[in-house]
Amino acid sequence: MTPQFSPNFAKAQGLITAVTVDADSGEVLMVAYMNEEAFRLTLETGKVHYFSRTRNKLWKKGESSGNMQELVEMRVDCDLDAVVVRARQSGPACHEGFRSCFYRTVSPSGTLVENAAREMTPEQMYGGKS
Amino acid sequence: MTPQFSPNFAKAQGLITAVTVDADSGEVLMVAYMNEEAFRLTLETGKVHYFSRTRNKLWKKGESSGNMQELVEMRVDCDLDAVVVRARQSGPACHEGFRSCFYRTVSPSGTLVENAAREMTPEQMYGGKS
Repeated sequence: MTPQFSPNFAKAQGLITAVTVDADSGEVLMVAYMNEEAFRLTLETGKVHYFSRTRNKLWKKGESSGNMQELVEMRVDCDLDAVVVRARQSGPACHEGFRSCFYRTVSPSGTLVENAAREMTPEQMYGGKS
Repeated sequence: MTPQFSPNFAKAQGLITAVTVDADSGEVLMVAYMNEEAFRLTLETGKVHYFSRTRNKLWKKGESSGNMQELVEMRVDCDLDAVVVRARQSGPACHEGFRSCFYRTVSPSGTLVENAAREMTPEQMYGGKS
């Protein structure tokens, strides 16, 4: 299936922002980026793909950790340069082994406080390859 | 109060990504950006501030529409270049008059389908100034 709709990749200089949330709880799991290929593959395969700015390449979520994301629904914003991806996440979304990348809260005194427990160590996730 | 913690603005080329969610429901309301001043003012004043890339200036959410955001909690991601802002939003967050900017779902056939009702017209929000 070729999607008829396309975000405004030109305006977004090739990369739209993707906010991925747990399809059931709505919790924000991570923020990443999609190029046109990642967007298309996500819709076509039902597995969430991103574009890694650090590695400068397409990135199928879970390709190294095994913790994939199954697409449930995608929403696009008013400006067509950001999407909310509702997904079912197997295992931790964060490479640090937490369910969500947003595992630290900025306290009123300005320090960071963990708001969740680590589910896996990076070694458990990547077999020492991280 | 001066916050002791600071996101990695240098890595983020001066602008971190801010995902603002409804503090009660968790619904993603909008995605925008914060520079260091917007981040600091958000924590200091309890009103959510952003940096508008379009207007190239500090932007106190609701300054023209009146639909402000009261900060409840801020979380930061593993890479220190994105935050989740839990806020209480008065009125629509979206300049199009919807509660959330993500009011359209990409359907399986690749078209856009509205997933929410418009709460206000842009004219009601901005008095024809939008």
